[in-house]
Amino acid sequence: MQTVEVALGVRSYRILVGPGLLSDAGRHVSAVLAARRVLLISDDTVARLYLEPVRRSLADAGFTVAGATVPPGETSKSLAQLERLYDACLQAGLERSSLIVALGGGVIGDLAGFVAASYMRGIPFIQMPTTLLAQVDSSIGGKTGINLPGGKNLVGAFHQPSLVLADVSALRTLDPRQFATGMAEVIKHAMIRDAKLFALLEAETARLSERDPAVLEEIVGWNCRIKAAVVAADERESGLRAILNYGHTVGHAVERAAAYGTYTHGEAIALGMSAEADVARRRGNIGQAVLDRQQGLLARFGLPTRFRQPLHIDELLAAMRHDKKIQSGRLRVVLPTTIGDVQIADDVSEDELRAALGDLQP
Amino acid sequence: MQTVEVALGVRSYRILVGPGLLSDAGRHVSAVLAARRVLLISDDTVARLYLEPVRRSLADAGFTVAGATVPPGETSKSLAQLERLYDACLQAGLERSSLIVALGGGVIGDLAGFVAASYMRGIPFIQMPTTLLAQVDSSIGGKTGINLPGGKNLVGAFHQPSLVLADVSALRTLDPRQFATGMAEVIKHAMIRDAKLFALLEAETARLSERDPAVLEEIVGWNCRIKAAVVAADERESGLRAILNYGHTVGHAVERAAAYGTYTHGEAIALGMSAEADVARRRGNIGQAVLDRQQGLLARFGLPTRFRQPLHIDELLAAMRHDKKIQSGRLRVVLPTTIGDVQIADDVSEDELRAALGDLQP
Repeated sequence: MQTVEVALGVRSYRILVGPGLLSDAGRHVSAVLAARRVLLISDDTVARLYLEPVRRSLADAGFTVAGATVPPGETSKSLAQLERLYDACLQAGLERSSLIVALGGGVIGDLAGFVAASYMRGIPFIQMPTTLLAQVDSSIGGKTGINLPGGKNLVGAFHQPSLVLADVSALRTLDPRQFATGMAEVIKHAMIRDAKLFALLEAETARLSERDPAVLEEIVGWNCRIKAAVVAADERESGLRAILNYGHTVGHAVERAAAYGTYTHGEAIALGMSAEADVARRRGNIGQAVLDRQQGLLARFGLPTRFRQPLHIDELLAAMRHDKKIQSGRLRVVLPTTIGDVQIADDVSEDELRAALGDLQP
Repeated sequence: MQTVEVALGVRSYRILVGPGLLSDAGRHVSAVLAARRVLLISDDTVARLYLEPVRRSLADAGFTVAGATVPPGETSKSLAQLERLYDACLQAGLERSSLIVALGGGVIGDLAGFVAASYMRGIPFIQMPTTLLAQVDSSIGGKTGINLPGGKNLVGAFHQPSLVLADVSALRTLDPRQFATGMAEVIKHAMIRDAKLFALLEAETARLSERDPAVLEEIVGWNCRIKAAVVAADERESGLRAILNYGHTVGHAVERAAAYGTYTHGEAIALGMSAEADVARRRGNIGQAVLDRQQGLLARFGLPTRFRQPLHIDELLAAMRHDKKIQSGRLRVVLPTTIGDVQIADDVSEDELRAALGDLQP
């Protein structure tokens, strides 16, 4: 088991990474919180696999446990589900010192985290991420939220968990496309901060794709350390944390412009990294070899580096304008300077983007 | 004009107290925030009186101002109104650096404050309280929230404003019962912290009741200093801030047990202070003279010190149990030790409360 510290003063917490953590949840939770009542929030798919072992472990440790589930998928990050979950908090008799556990992927972490952030003006919560994407990215850093019809994550709060249990055994049941979507964020972390991690990913592609538990533990732990260090340096996203948006400026536009369900989040981010690295190459910030290494690694994990169907570049640019990421024709974008390092550029022009996006057309 | 500092580190802010502040809002807001877009949230009653002058002043200072109103009253602190207001934020094009202004009483401050706390994970907001209750109490301290069918303020956040503008001119239009409800919190502040304030309230009852602007400014400013000092010492209500609950343990039970609308919040708190001071008298912590002074001052401002209709004491105790304020038959309650000081007692028995509540029957 690996332990990663997220250093945020009084809001500091630990991430535990390893196999079998969910069925031993009661012991780990008892070690950090004296809560008596727990509401376990999950989605129907994850609940079928893991709710019972987690519930039993918490009950054995002396907690009074209630459960609430929502349908799987992004549409559950809604005000309607939020209202249902507040009701579940009341039914479970949660008090200020009670605990909410988010058991599932990023959707559950965001939704249950916001319930915890806002119920009684904030009660403790613990993340038990069950997808690779959630384990290496969304469960760390305290961002919680739901969507509005007008856009994603428009309502939310910064609310740090008291503990994150990243059980790598849960990754064995992930379907390949969900696994790949998490790998996009892993490759992103390597690109922005860590050439050694990048080299390890190149060397261990096969064992990772086979979901070898030892390699998963190493990779997940390594990624948690990278994300934790960035978050610790900039909890409220006022500076450094922006580098985590590498691939996301273009990626969010792809998610918005492509038909719903065409690309997973990670696939869109892979396309975003492809375009943004190409901007850097065209500027001469990186050479072709760096771009090729990134594209090669993305492809080896089944991630796209070109659009599957043609996308209108005007629509992509319109989506970035809507995101307020273009101001007076200039775009703020994270550009690689080598494998393992990036800079934030405020002066990327629409023409540069057009050229890079053109290269992504099939 | 008086200026009160609320010292909360990076979240510090000022309360300005004086006449005419609303029509000069643009200048005061510009001095603390560089926001361009503003959403002014108010209720229909307050909006008729003050929305236009505030809007004009903000527009004259260069802000792009949109407005949104809700029906007056506690029922607007709902998820349904929250959803409407998120939509208003989107329609107004609010970004992370935009501003929400809460223009109204406690309901508007709580509701608009929670919109600001949660929209885009928190954007700046400014309180412009227009009732005495909001000026001396609810606009200070960062508590925001809405109600659920299961109880009041069950959803919310701590979110400090960037500025509070307490325009005492607005108090001239308050109906007498609303003015009295604010006076209950003023008298509470004097009882818990400040014998000099108490003596001033006794001396200036007439000019206060006439809403003399100079006396209002002095009293509101004084109360803001008391509340600000308590909040600064204990932002998240983990210790000292509990003394602000003097009168509220019983008061909340009265609000819950009496038919809706029978007592205003301040009237219920006056009854709560009456009962809780009587517990202290029965314990010998205070003499009859202290109790009489408190009751005399409450009565002079038109606040009740006895129930208007008989209340079932069992129902009141059941309401306190529901509030989790009774544990194993013992109640946590703030008891006066003299005029201007209190202690927190964890060992008040149901029998002591029965006796004190019995004295309140008509």
